[in-house]
Amino acid sequence: MRIIEGGICAVCGVNASGIKDGRNGVALITGGGPAAGVFTTNKVTAAPVIVTREHLKQSNEILAIIANSGSANAFTGPAGLADAKSVSKSLAQRLQINDTQVAVASTGVIGTPLNVDWIDSRIETLLLTLTDSAEGSLAAAQAIMTTDSVPKHIAVEVSDVRIGGIAKGAGMIEPKLCTMLAFIYTDAQLSADVLQKCLKQAADISFNMVVVDGDTSTNDSVLLIATGESPTTIEISKFQDALNFVCITLAKMIARDGEGASKMMEVTVTGARNRGDAVKAAKAVVRSPLVKTALFGADPNWGRIVAAVGYSEAFVDPSLLSLSLSNGKSPPIVLLQKGIIRTANADDFEKDALAAIMKSAEISIQIDLGLGVASATAWGCDLTEDYVRINAQYTT
Amino acid sequence: MRIIEGGICAVCGVNASGIKDGRNGVALITGGGPAAGVFTTNKVTAAPVIVTREHLKQSNEILAIIANSGSANAFTGPAGLADAKSVSKSLAQRLQINDTQVAVASTGVIGTPLNVDWIDSRIETLLLTLTDSAEGSLAAAQAIMTTDSVPKHIAVEVSDVRIGGIAKGAGMIEPKLCTMLAFIYTDAQLSADVLQKCLKQAADISFNMVVVDGDTSTNDSVLLIATGESPTTIEISKFQDALNFVCITLAKMIARDGEGASKMMEVTVTGARNRGDAVKAAKAVVRSPLVKTALFGADPNWGRIVAAVGYSEAFVDPSLLSLSLSNGKSPPIVLLQKGIIRTANADDFEKDALAAIMKSAEISIQIDLGLGVASATAWGCDLTEDYVRINAQYTT
Repeated sequence: MRIIEGGICAVCGVNASGIKDGRNGVALITGGGPAAGVFTTNKVTAAPVIVTREHLKQSNEILAIIANSGSANAFTGPAGLADAKSVSKSLAQRLQINDTQVAVASTGVIGTPLNVDWIDSRIETLLLTLTDSAEGSLAAAQAIMTTDSVPKHIAVEVSDVRIGGIAKGAGMIEPKLCTMLAFIYTDAQLSADVLQKCLKQAADISFNMVVVDGDTSTNDSVLLIATGESPTTIEISKFQDALNFVCITLAKMIARDGEGASKMMEVTVTGARNRGDAVKAAKAVVRSPLVKTALFGADPNWGRIVAAVGYSEAFVDPSLLSLSLSNGKSPPIVLLQKGIIRTANADDFEKDALAAIMKSAEISIQIDLGLGVASATAWGCDLTEDYVRINAQYTT
Repeated sequence: MRIIEGGICAVCGVNASGIKDGRNGVALITGGGPAAGVFTTNKVTAAPVIVTREHLKQSNEILAIIANSGSANAFTGPAGLADAKSVSKSLAQRLQINDTQVAVASTGVIGTPLNVDWIDSRIETLLLTLTDSAEGSLAAAQAIMTTDSVPKHIAVEVSDVRIGGIAKGAGMIEPKLCTMLAFIYTDAQLSADVLQKCLKQAADISFNMVVVDGDTSTNDSVLLIATGESPTTIEISKFQDALNFVCITLAKMIARDGEGASKMMEVTVTGARNRGDAVKAAKAVVRSPLVKTALFGADPNWGRIVAAVGYSEAFVDPSLLSLSLSNGKSPPIVLLQKGIIRTANADDFEKDALAAIMKSAEISIQIDLGLGVASATAWGCDLTEDYVRINAQYTT
């Protein structure tokens, strides 16, 4: 497997374009085939999620995606549902495909009606600027950005099959069995059923392991769509590995671009009794505002990490707990070894190394529960004054 | 029932004193009798919690409390346990009581050893300055403050029985079945069993409904101790009502004094199918960083409230949801009525009133799920740049 350029447009058969105009944006992606999706579990489900889930169920394939930023079209009642359907219908007519082959997605303020006229008036331009070059993928990724500071895209090639994805997400992020907006394409020849299984597995170890603020959005959607244009038949396990890589890469991009974030953390929990416990412990650490602020302040306040593991509902025996920190550049610093604090005896050299790690842009926290063989990795970011500033004045 | 002065010292038979010296502090409270306690559910349990829980189990009564700030004496291993026992023992010797009649409590940095010598050297002064006047209660409340900006105390009188309490807590606050440090005394003649039942009931609707940052501490402890010096026999239901009031008052003080907080929110959920659902929905709203930052910015971004209710795991039907905001001064502004957005039609008068509410120091959020008759109230605070500043540099 190798990383290639081009985002979703690296995949044979995919064209994309996008327009961004202040807070409003709209992206168009065409090409496709059998498709799979995972969606938000928030009971206040946005209209586009309801529509796209229904379309997928009816057709099992997606030939075009239209996604807007500015309004989430969530909690907009029957009118919002009609708006999402109308956008889907008008695109289907121009492309001469069925409504049920169109996916719609929205991101932005909850409770604000979708600006259907504005979107409609842009569809012509979007159709004219569709391209299968990398610029198309970038334009689409940029069009769906809200508080994101960078567009997020990745593409890989394995056994002559390509997988490419774009994503957006920086706030209201703690996906549950689902995620923020991510559109992933492949030219592999795979059925909707196989795609759904692979996507579920990949989402559980990627998007579902990212926390920015612990708020689960009303609009989370990940779509995996296969154009089938690659001549090669790929082993499922190889496809799964490549898909996992694409999803984890996009998930880490979201953590790194968390609202106001200055640092990313990767928390790996090993030695858990089972996967569920490892997930609980890892997510408690990346979610903890106290760990997040300590990270921001480069304060090696490891007691907060231990406290988060303790309240995580994972089975924990403090006397077996080990903890080390690293930044991938120097050897990890061991803070706890089977319940014994090692920092008390640390020499000056280790203290300097610890300080250097805490100041790094990417900090890796390794926790061993000492109880079993299950593990999990979660990603998060620090909590900064900028996060507060960004979110205190979002709608005004 | 009426509110009286004096904090815990308003209760017949209670004496208190306290010393605060920079980051270190120590409080002493004497007097007591049958006692009850609820403690943290964090599996990384602090040494003083382990010791006090054990003492209560053995003796069912508490005659003295010694509580320090500066070190949490948590994750300090067997040495930490020995330290907590040593403090308890040296106080018991001077007071000529059993070790098991002493409660110990700590708050501060996790993983830092308890400064036993410093505490020991202060016990003599604490004993000499013990007083049953209001100053004693205040000195004790001040001695256990960490990031708290104000001491927290309350006392009430009902049927010639008094209940008085002090508490500390501003950060690492999301108690689960238990809470931060709070010491509550009464002169009612009640057994340890009755006290335990009453305390559990009161804690569930007070301390357990406060969220500052969503981190559950390793040291949470609430003690309820009866000196039995009141000559009156009080009806249990009257005592319960007064105890509920004391606990809710202390809990609201903790929410109002949340680290860096500029505003308090009270979230009431009605119309839930059951109490559990009401609790989940109310706590999701007070915990949401997006609701908290919107509150700070006085941004009437009600979509975030609705999103939090939606992901709370409570049963929710968006088409039945009602939402209104108030500040207790003017009539509530109805934003949603059974799923219909009312803000779209709001006249200028209502917009001004809404803006005034969002700028208030105390904001009340009323959510009706429209499904049943169960309800719950939770308290929280806004998330400010000061919260980040306070917590980014806690140990350094």
